[in-house]
Amino acid sequence: MSAQPAAGTATPAHPGTTPPANPVDRVLGDLHARIGGEPLTGAVADYIPELSTADPSTFGIALATVQGDVHEVGDTAVPFTIQSISKMVLYGMALEDRGREAVAEVVGVEPSGEAFNSIRLHPERSTPLNPMVNAGAIATTGLVQGADPGERLARILATFERYTGRVAEVDERVYRSESETGHRNRAIAHLLRNFSVIGGDPDDVLDVYFRQCSILVTCRDLAVMGATLANRGVNPITGARALAEEHVPSVLSVMATCGMYDFAGQWLHDIGLPAKSGVAGGILAVLPGQFGVGTLSPPLDAVGNSVRGIRVCRALSEELGLHLLDPPRPGVAARGTAPAPAASRRRRTGAAEDALEGASQRILRQRPQGDLTFAAAAAIARSLGESCPDGGSVVLDLSAVSRVDGAGAAILCALGDTLAARGVHLLVCGAADHPRLGAEIERRADAGDAAEIDVRGDAEEALEWCEDRLLGQLGVIEDAAVPLGSGELCRRMSPEEVADLRAALEDVAFAAGEVMIAEGSPSDHLLVIGSGRASVTTTRDDGSRVRVLTIGPGMFTGEVGLIDGGPRSATVVADTPVTAHRLTREGLARLSDDPALRTRTLLLLNVAESLSGHLRRATALLAAGSA
Amino acid sequence: MSAQPAAGTATPAHPGTTPPANPVDRVLGDLHARIGGEPLTGAVADYIPELSTADPSTFGIALATVQGDVHEVGDTAVPFTIQSISKMVLYGMALEDRGREAVAEVVGVEPSGEAFNSIRLHPERSTPLNPMVNAGAIATTGLVQGADPGERLARILATFERYTGRVAEVDERVYRSESETGHRNRAIAHLLRNFSVIGGDPDDVLDVYFRQCSILVTCRDLAVMGATLANRGVNPITGARALAEEHVPSVLSVMATCGMYDFAGQWLHDIGLPAKSGVAGGILAVLPGQFGVGTLSPPLDAVGNSVRGIRVCRALSEELGLHLLDPPRPGVAARGTAPAPAASRRRRTGAAEDALEGASQRILRQRPQGDLTFAAAAAIARSLGESCPDGGSVVLDLSAVSRVDGAGAAILCALGDTLAARGVHLLVCGAADHPRLGAEIERRADAGDAAEIDVRGDAEEALEWCEDRLLGQLGVIEDAAVPLGSGELCRRMSPEEVADLRAALEDVAFAAGEVMIAEGSPSDHLLVIGSGRASVTTTRDDGSRVRVLTIGPGMFTGEVGLIDGGPRSATVVADTPVTAHRLTREGLARLSDDPALRTRTLLLLNVAESLSGHLRRATALLAAGSA
Repeated sequence: MSAQPAAGTATPAHPGTTPPANPVDRVLGDLHARIGGEPLTGAVADYIPELSTADPSTFGIALATVQGDVHEVGDTAVPFTIQSISKMVLYGMALEDRGREAVAEVVGVEPSGEAFNSIRLHPERSTPLNPMVNAGAIATTGLVQGADPGERLARILATFERYTGRVAEVDERVYRSESETGHRNRAIAHLLRNFSVIGGDPDDVLDVYFRQCSILVTCRDLAVMGATLANRGVNPITGARALAEEHVPSVLSVMATCGMYDFAGQWLHDIGLPAKSGVAGGILAVLPGQFGVGTLSPPLDAVGNSVRGIRVCRALSEELGLHLLDPPRPGVAARGTAPAPAASRRRRTGAAEDALEGASQRILRQRPQGDLTFAAAAAIARSLGESCPDGGSVVLDLSAVSRVDGAGAAILCALGDTLAARGVHLLVCGAADHPRLGAEIERRADAGDAAEIDVRGDAEEALEWCEDRLLGQLGVIEDAAVPLGSGELCRRMSPEEVADLRAALEDVAFAAGEVMIAEGSPSDHLLVIGSGRASVTTTRDDGSRVRVLTIGPGMFTGEVGLIDGGPRSATVVADTPVTAHRLTREGLARLSDDPALRTRTLLLLNVAESLSGHLRRATALLAAGSA
Repeated sequence: MSAQPAAGTATPAHPGTTPPANPVDRVLGDLHARIGGEPLTGAVADYIPELSTADPSTFGIALATVQGDVHEVGDTAVPFTIQSISKMVLYGMALEDRGREAVAEVVGVEPSGEAFNSIRLHPERSTPLNPMVNAGAIATTGLVQGADPGERLARILATFERYTGRVAEVDERVYRSESETGHRNRAIAHLLRNFSVIGGDPDDVLDVYFRQCSILVTCRDLAVMGATLANRGVNPITGARALAEEHVPSVLSVMATCGMYDFAGQWLHDIGLPAKSGVAGGILAVLPGQFGVGTLSPPLDAVGNSVRGIRVCRALSEELGLHLLDPPRPGVAARGTAPAPAASRRRRTGAAEDALEGASQRILRQRPQGDLTFAAAAAIARSLGESCPDGGSVVLDLSAVSRVDGAGAAILCALGDTLAARGVHLLVCGAADHPRLGAEIERRADAGDAAEIDVRGDAEEALEWCEDRLLGQLGVIEDAAVPLGSGELCRRMSPEEVADLRAALEDVAFAAGEVMIAEGSPSDHLLVIGSGRASVTTTRDDGSRVRVLTIGPGMFTGEVGLIDGGPRSATVVADTPVTAHRLTREGLARLSDDPALRTRTLLLLNVAESLSGHLRRATALLAAGSA
């Protein structure tokens, strides 16, 4: 390497006087300014003549997140040749094209502890030690499918385009320079041919190898490629899949153990981000599940890694605590996760409500927060298993869970089995956002071992089901027509007052499924149910509907609108055929003024009492919940 | 290694007929039964004569979580010598005793790609390549502090006890056997002494080394040791710290790259769990942040790793998707995280409510779920920055966040800076469970660069502050005594009806801070505020108090209790000196029966209207929230 002097003219991190408006830009800008201000050490690579012309002061940092946001500071649009960073793309293509076993025949995954251009092969198997040294990458180039070298290169370029989201092209000058002077790589290729690690004409493989080493990228491209790996192989900006999901851990693993030449162990130890560097001065680093980083600064250290690129990655890792092997602290998933007796919001007849209250320990609900990993699912399984009596029901509400991983799903399915063995019914709701759980349930069903999990839409539906089951277990039957005078609206009224009210009511009937009151429509009456059953539902902010309560004979609904005349806040739908009495605002006004009959006062008192009950219930829900 | 035949008599996974009651036990039991049923290959180690007597059919699996639960199946209580697994303990002790730099002088962290007993040293530095080969572990043994070998060993045993939670002892027979036949290790020690990697008498270091290799452990011990690493160095059962937090990533890193002898790269590639094996047949594996696994099965493969132990770890990793480099899928943190205009529950005078409603876009709230990692914080920062107008206020409610990591905390602090530059005030609430954020705010304050973050207890408090700020910006002043007839309770009443009501009221006054109504006490009256201000608060399930609303002149409170007579559902406290009128249940009954005065009916109607309003508000909150 030449000792080309460092210019030290870093691009200003905050050009002009306006500080960046985005905090990530700010963090990266500060980093760029700080590291750009340090003396520039190292030397630009000169073993490929064309590389030695690079401007040593070029310095860029780009970061792309799995959400598809890209943050850039400095010389992030300067094109340079990818060099060894392409090795991770080739290894992924070989895995896709030939499968894991066939690739393992041809190249190992053990760190070499040697330089990138080592010609040493596995002492017994005579195969390259790993795909991140030149020998290994020449071998994986040979595994890329294609009728001829041109087709192989075209497929490699197309894969690059999926990784970066833009057209890939080869720097012809660097390619020629590399091809003309790559004697050591030619020696490696012929050695590989000797051991049949590659087939055909070694020069054909080498030509593709040299060309793909000379693909032009920018820091931004590297960051997006890293984000694509971090995002399980899908480019988060274009949505294109660049690498089959199953091979992502393999590619990241060899980056973690072999990506930084003979500095790989130290790199993982100190910095803890799977990464790959290239002799043109680029480094690509990945924090799986979060982001990719691309840096460019041509001066290299003795083992061939960009000096400033290493400093950037080290600072990011140390200052932000991003080491892959820094165990995540336990989350606060424990909050709100203790299993506790729970009831639906459904109002029932007195006998049923008394029965449910008396057996309230038999229906438990648990609503964990955070990630449902193996350990979190194991903790839930233990607490639920210990709390629920034999024959009871358990509602596991996943609506506040941010993620269920494969292990969490497997443990939940196994929990269903162990609970079922004790007669405990496990209902899971809020699972729509957690495809891994659905996949595990399906996988088990396909394997003829159906998971004992009852998936429900929401906790309300699940709790109602549990209550119906419990009432069945207890032998309580609810349902009987209730005459007007025995209903909630007529409490404390004399027979004369009931008759006075009856005269102000109109009889109505609804078919099952019919809308009795529509949310948002003008309010002008309440309905007293004579027979049948109806559901009161409201619309959530996100447009989904939630059942607020179920009403039956003797109950009334629509009183809020009757009192305040505002638009209906809920929809009432008949679950069965329903007969009802309608009290309109005009009917209310027509109630007798006879001082002997206090119908109106008692009616308003009963309505207010009902409202108070609803309000107490809503307040308790709010206090118990998140609000 | 001898070709001791495999007995194939695995311990039954489900002894008797009762299946395990816990799902994790079930998963492990199935694994133990399956792998225990496969033909036993490999050979028990015989290079230390005493090891060759081990029963090859012994087979145990233990798993300990960071929550401190231990799951065991098979021969998990059988003691065996720890052998090379102790190397990770010694490396951690060396780091604690001497510091990172001093240890790096003496031993590298690069994978050797060679066998555990390799005598090869770094070609230039003449130091062992890493602490997981014998040469490296002899070097780290030499770094353990202690006046003499006895004290060193005592300190090592004490550290083991913190890792396992039980008394550590040395198997004297194995120690003697190892010491008498350990010629290769003696050669290594003398070579290290030659290069001054160790000082003093090599035999002293070797004696400690041989003894600590012969410490007796069980599968259960290994699992708990792994869980201790997974738990950032703290034994999750005893709470004892076994390793300083800062060194945990270093120990896990060398396990990841060098822990499985010359199979390390393949191990990380295929299985993806940092691990360490020993020639007595033990394997310790770790999933950082989640659990440790310990396995015992003496027959070893050609490189010296337990055949069945590898199968167990491979099955756990593949079947449960536990590979460290399998990027986590993005969580559903996006749900509910869009910044949206928000209002407190505080009721205000008409002018103030109108003003706030007209400028509702100037106060935004965001309530993310899941883990606030770098990428999640970056996404929040972007959406908040884009949504909030200059000069506005933003409430970031972290109460549904399960974890804030160091990077998330740094990005939030930087977000405060970028928002403040635009006159936007950032309030963060629900941060009590997230010590990393508090630590970052403190760190910045110590560095003289105070974070522009206003930490508040809860969203309600934060929103009220934002509304007060906005009313100040808009120049709206609220506060003026309201005569009874102009208040909410007397709507639609004639002057005669107001006078009728007035006669039924008693005047009361409260000092600032006085309790006007106490939650849980019997209900017998409502209060109409004449002047001053009061807060209505309720108790959450967790015992914390939440302000439901603030009331002022012309408003009334306590109506729920007046109507239904139940225990008070909320506490009302005077914020300022308050004058009020009290209407008791007796007062209500005393209202005139004169048909010309409809006081009672109108009063009940007004109360019902107020209840309707509260109910609409509570219903809207429930629909918007999680319930």
